[in-house]
Amino acid sequence: MKKAPTDAIVQIEGHIVDSDILSEVFDLIIKGGGKFEIRDFVIGKTNIETSVAQLRISAPTKEKLNLLLNLLNAKGCFVVTEQAATLKRALKDQAVPDDFYSTTNFRTEIRLNGRWIRVTNQRMDGVIIVTGGKAAVRKLREVTKGELVVCGLNGVRVHPEFKSRERGDFSFMSNEVSSEKKVSLAVDKVAEMIRKRQGKLVIVGGPVVIHTGAVESLCRMIRGGYVGGLLTGNALAVHDIENALFGTSLGVDTSAGTPVDQGHRNHMRAINQINLAGGIKNAVRRKILRSGIMYELVKAKVPFVLAGSLRDDGPLPETITDMNEAQAAYAREIKGAEMVLMLSTMLHSIATGNMLPAWVKTVCVDINPSVVTKLADRGSSQALGIVTDVGLFCHLLADRLCKQ
Amino acid sequence: MKKAPTDAIVQIEGHIVDSDILSEVFDLIIKGGGKFEIRDFVIGKTNIETSVAQLRISAPTKEKLNLLLNLLNAKGCFVVTEQAATLKRALKDQAVPDDFYSTTNFRTEIRLNGRWIRVTNQRMDGVIIVTGGKAAVRKLREVTKGELVVCGLNGVRVHPEFKSRERGDFSFMSNEVSSEKKVSLAVDKVAEMIRKRQGKLVIVGGPVVIHTGAVESLCRMIRGGYVGGLLTGNALAVHDIENALFGTSLGVDTSAGTPVDQGHRNHMRAINQINLAGGIKNAVRRKILRSGIMYELVKAKVPFVLAGSLRDDGPLPETITDMNEAQAAYAREIKGAEMVLMLSTMLHSIATGNMLPAWVKTVCVDINPSVVTKLADRGSSQALGIVTDVGLFCHLLADRLCKQ
Amino acid sequence: MKKAPTDAIVQIEGHIVDSDILSEVFDLIIKGGGKFEIRDFVIGKTNIETSVAQLRISAPTKEKLNLLLNLLNAKGCFVVTEQAATLKRALKDQAVPDDFYSTTNFRTEIRLNGRWIRVTNQRMDGVIIVTGGKAAVRKLREVTKGELVVCGLNGVRVHPEFKSRERGDFSFMSNEVSSEKKVSLAVDKVAEMIRKRQGKLVIVGGPVVIHTGAVESLCRMIRGGYVGGLLTGNALAVHDIENALFGTSLGVDTSAGTPVDQGHRNHMRAINQINLAGGIKNAVRRKILRSGIMYELVKAKVPFVLAGSLRDDGPLPETITDMNEAQAAYAREIKGAEMVLMLSTMLHSIATGNMLPAWVKTVCVDINPSVVTKLADRGSSQALGIVTDVGLFCHLLADRLCKQ
Amino acid sequence: MKKAPTDAIVQIEGHIVDSDILSEVFDLIIKGGGKFEIRDFVIGKTNIETSVAQLRISAPTKEKLNLLLNLLNAKGCFVVTEQAATLKRALKDQAVPDDFYSTTNFRTEIRLNGRWIRVTNQRMDGVIIVTGGKAAVRKLREVTKGELVVCGLNGVRVHPEFKSRERGDFSFMSNEVSSEKKVSLAVDKVAEMIRKRQGKLVIVGGPVVIHTGAVESLCRMIRGGYVGGLLTGNALAVHDIENALFGTSLGVDTSAGTPVDQGHRNHMRAINQINLAGGIKNAVRRKILRSGIMYELVKAKVPFVLAGSLRDDGPLPETITDMNEAQAAYAREIKGAEMVLMLSTMLHSIATGNMLPAWVKTVCVDINPSVVTKLADRGSSQALGIVTDVGLFCHLLADRLCKQ
Repeated sequence: MKKAPTDAIVQIEGHIVDSDILSEVFDLIIKGGGKFEIRDFVIGKTNIETSVAQLRISAPTKEKLNLLLNLLNAKGCFVVTEQAATLKRALKDQAVPDDFYSTTNFRTEIRLNGRWIRVTNQRMDGVIIVTGGKAAVRKLREVTKGELVVCGLNGVRVHPEFKSRERGDFSFMSNEVSSEKKVSLAVDKVAEMIRKRQGKLVIVGGPVVIHTGAVESLCRMIRGGYVGGLLTGNALAVHDIENALFGTSLGVDTSAGTPVDQGHRNHMRAINQINLAGGIKNAVRRKILRSGIMYELVKAKVPFVLAGSLRDDGPLPETITDMNEAQAAYAREIKGAEMVLMLSTMLHSIATGNMLPAWVKTVCVDINPSVVTKLADRGSSQALGIVTDVGLFCHLLADRLCKQ
Repeated sequence: MKKAPTDAIVQIEGHIVDSDILSEVFDLIIKGGGKFEIRDFVIGKTNIETSVAQLRISAPTKEKLNLLLNLLNAKGCFVVTEQAATLKRALKDQAVPDDFYSTTNFRTEIRLNGRWIRVTNQRMDGVIIVTGGKAAVRKLREVTKGELVVCGLNGVRVHPEFKSRERGDFSFMSNEVSSEKKVSLAVDKVAEMIRKRQGKLVIVGGPVVIHTGAVESLCRMIRGGYVGGLLTGNALAVHDIENALFGTSLGVDTSAGTPVDQGHRNHMRAINQINLAGGIKNAVRRKILRSGIMYELVKAKVPFVLAGSLRDDGPLPETITDMNEAQAAYAREIKGAEMVLMLSTMLHSIATGNMLPAWVKTVCVDINPSVVTKLADRGSSQALGIVTDVGLFCHLLADRLCKQ
Repeated sequence: MKKAPTDAIVQIEGHIVDSDILSEVFDLIIKGGGKFEIRDFVIGKTNIETSVAQLRISAPTKEKLNLLLNLLNAKGCFVVTEQAATLKRALKDQAVPDDFYSTTNFRTEIRLNGRWIRVTNQRMDGVIIVTGGKAAVRKLREVTKGELVVCGLNGVRVHPEFKSRERGDFSFMSNEVSSEKKVSLAVDKVAEMIRKRQGKLVIVGGPVVIHTGAVESLCRMIRGGYVGGLLTGNALAVHDIENALFGTSLGVDTSAGTPVDQGHRNHMRAINQINLAGGIKNAVRRKILRSGIMYELVKAKVPFVLAGSLRDDGPLPETITDMNEAQAAYAREIKGAEMVLMLSTMLHSIATGNMLPAWVKTVCVDINPSVVTKLADRGSSQALGIVTDVGLFCHLLADRLCKQ
Repeated sequence: MKKAPTDAIVQIEGHIVDSDILSEVFDLIIKGGGKFEIRDFVIGKTNIETSVAQLRISAPTKEKLNLLLNLLNAKGCFVVTEQAATLKRALKDQAVPDDFYSTTNFRTEIRLNGRWIRVTNQRMDGVIIVTGGKAAVRKLREVTKGELVVCGLNGVRVHPEFKSRERGDFSFMSNEVSSEKKVSLAVDKVAEMIRKRQGKLVIVGGPVVIHTGAVESLCRMIRGGYVGGLLTGNALAVHDIENALFGTSLGVDTSAGTPVDQGHRNHMRAINQINLAGGIKNAVRRKILRSGIMYELVKAKVPFVLAGSLRDDGPLPETITDMNEAQAAYAREIKGAEMVLMLSTMLHSIATGNMLPAWVKTVCVDINPSVVTKLADRGSSQALGIVTDVGLFCHLLADRLCKQ
């Protein structure tokens, strides 16, 4: 009782030959148990023209065909017959029909009332909610019972980032994560990207930034107006304040480099001082806190978010201890970012990466190659990974940016 | 106008020669700018006798002397004149006088009303609160205005874990973190420790436990009654449930090992299913979730805590999103634990380690040597680090424990 | 005085669309400052048909064009006008004309006397020497003054390994180097590959094989007839013999797992014993050496090569201390190998990889992901990387292969 | 038929309490199944005085006692009755009696004709040969049949490096291997050590030195007269020359940072050019090689050793392909070194470390923390490990040393 084979015609456009898209499409079909026939193939004959391919895809069962279309959708293939997106109602708060469409981080359009409309608030692993003729990505937990959710693949079109033939600046070292590279070249590149940016530069950092001695470098960048926001956790702020108040970070004297015993005491003392002052901003106002990254941010009115973590001491009053709220605060600050610089923090960097649309440039710096690989590998041509010492990197970067 | 030198007499007892304590004490004094004179030294002449040393310590200033006494206190030195602990009142909620005593994870006594009393709820980086003649460690954020806080070092006595001359079983491989070791020997040792334990075994695990194929091994250990609690995050539970419902983890087919596209969809589908069911426990009751680690825990009524994280998707209904509450829940489950097995998670393991008194045995297993080094190095002789594949480790361990 | 642009017509055949070859070709041209026009493109319309593309490539100068043709040659493009290979004489021993053709590890043909002939002894970074109408790859140092060397790209045709559309068994986990995987699945696969092989299985191993307790597993595989050769260094042999004679490896008791002091003495004693006996083979014959990997190899008459290294103690009499001779000995044993299993040694694995043609299957096992990445990334679809504990891996593999 | 217990009296002197020596001694006795009684203990009462301890050690059998004495000898304990060293004849070339004394890297004396004489040529894992009333360490392979070899422990006295109470400069960051440190402080320290040195600074480096862009920094240091020798392999020289001749290293354009295809061709071309010129020195003389590290070394007449390796291409004419000869050449250049700077090479660094007496200062720089840990952990207080980017490190170091 084998089901009758079924087929569908899909189309894909773009620099599909000289990116790897077409190979991947063929691959997916064969691996998914399907077959294909190339109905039409107009290949771009010069560097500028895009190509268009139309394929007839057949699969042994309706289910397999749907699975295939599902996979191909993420690569930019859309079913040629232009059907409207299927909308179903959320079954209860935070729960949707099982065939819900799960978003990628690429630009996405859905077909509604005979037109393709852009989905806003693009991010990975969300659902698309339609209200008042508009479509936006939402986290599952933000869905309310009865809302209209896009389901299945009909009328959903994804625009993956094609690698451009004409290599732009950003392609430098992409896919090239290695500690065996000349870092000063990468610093030049990043400095140039920062200078040329139109939108905001957001920094995501971990406490290693303090331990490796990048405090003064980041302070210079903040004073220079280069930093549009800092996304971090309680620890960076605690150690920055410990350093500002007592000259140590994690119990190590930051100018002599020698361990001072009772360093743990110092970080607890720092938290206690800030608690007494009623928070970081108050501590700056009362002139208790008079230097360091947190001080400069407050002075320059640059927004920061301290997201809590299970391993926190304290935490400081400004730390957001609820993770849903912290994610929302991160998402708020990322809006309008053109570029994100991730410094030595896997937790905050992955969290941020999950929220970013594919077209935001990310630069990830860490001394551990596996962290860089993980972060730079976001299915986007916009991620640059640099394996090096974060303290020295920031020092060189601040020098490049803040020359006088 | 140099201040007059000052001095104090401190005493230390125990296996101070054949542990490294005495060397460290001398070291601290010299590095701290002090001098010492050995007034008395009764060295234990056999393997069983402890030694007692009494030192006169002098320092150029009162401040330096206090700093030194501070450092030496953590090594078990106490000022010979038996003064009562100094108590001061908390200045406001979550804020104490700046000279507060910051706790270690070693057994601690304070002198109150002419007697040494044991401080309960021992953990690192806390403060000691005295109420009704009793003393307990509290987190700074749990302190209320007006409570009595131990300040300074008078009347505080710490008992570091001395390495015993007669090497017990646990010393096996301690300080020996290496991937160049025969792991099966370490598994034997851990299995023996688990069988001989009197208190609870608590497991702390990350999602790699699922990806490396340890699900069935842990299920056997739960069914065998070996697991007294699971401390983890949202991710382990999501991927365990994804595996149970759809046969994948992180989008990889767990029996074929090949990637299934749309794996991200599966983990979101899993969350959606649990949301629909109203949580993990309800999903088990309604027979929607019928296998896996979370299923076995619910069936066996073994408590678990899912602590939230900034990088969570969902999260699942049982996940505690507020970090202060999550820390409290972890602390609750750790009570009575004799042994903690940490599997491939730096975040949850460090969080747990921060809460543990030094005498709880910890075994940390990870394929990354630097994670193991960080976790095994808790200033305690009770930490064992094993660098190996977590999936294979759990497989061998379950075999050793659950033979029939 | 800009030179006139020049052009050439090249052709490429194979599964060039669904592998990434075509994309790479276009990429190279654009990056190299050239332009291209697609003259002809016959795309394979089914899974089985190959595609053929003919491109006109133009570049601003003759030099740039030649550079481009050079690059494209390695991707399988050949100049359509079939010119004979250019032959020039070696200038002196070990020195050739500067435009010599430097080989890849892919199958290569050169055009000689109007016919395409296969080049033998294929390996990377060699030169092609023509003698008596035959062509063979040679290392530069093996070239004698006056010999005929292939220069430039005319008449040289390379056949890269195309990824097959129909995924064969070996593609499992290729490009998938991760410690977050279920290793038992990879072991199944490797065991199957070993059982199905037609040619020799050669093992390349480092001393970690001994320290992680894989001795008995490898001995079983040797006795089972699975091992066709062992390529290693002095250290593996020394520690294997130390283990056989004294029960330790690197000074650690291999059955108790506890360090035995004077372990260094034991490895020197082992070398001394073998020196006294006049070598490993004599030690086996005289029944001084009666167990372990080296013993089993001698007994089973399986060839082994011990290559020296700058860090060697001893070395043992069988160790080849001259690196040119050691490379030659390795190359000899690799002849006829269908599969190479690399166990925890970067030095010997890279050395072996340099000698292997692209079509020999390699499996690389190491606990360090960056070693696996480096070795598995040989521009070949035939390399499988597994990040896991080598001792446990060998244990599982021997179990799969040697069941009774 | 238990043998009668036996005992011996041993003495140990030095800063044995405030170093960890005494603890280790007690430990060894207990672990070795022995017992001890402290007969005499004169503890140094101030920072300057040393301590002296005399212990009676008993063990159940003569064999166990000897084993214990063996272990204790390496810690500096010597049997109080001053017996002469036992000398036996080598049985054949490269083979000695099984109870030969195996050397440590600490200063060693033997008792000969009623006097303690210093052993020359100290290194690890050697044997002591006595000729003409003098004693010297030899590698086993350098022993000739009939020579007099020190056997057993009688009359052998070892002086371990005691950690000084008064912390010297070098103790900075020792045992502190971490990537979470401020590197600029370490650079200051290393620069100061180099400036203050009396003996030679020898550099041991790998090819990563070239890839990370340290060429110009090392050239400045050579021109500044800071480098007394370079110990490396074929690869560093090849890539340095490739960089000098063609502007690439490993096929990456060293000023643009972008990969140039056919990089492998360039390194083979470099070898070919040097072969044509008849070696590196001739290439410099003939002005073929006009920049880079190898050029500067030749110009400044600084000796270098290129040791071969199994993975070499070429190798270059100056490369020593026989490992016994290469070890001898390294050993020759190390003579008189006060300080060794190891840059990103495990192989050459371990090889060098094996030859060094414990009192030579070593600084090891690598981006991989496990390499640094392995090298810095030589049982000596003279090893400093720095985890950072080698290119940036050398840049900062050259700036500190070569300011004008």
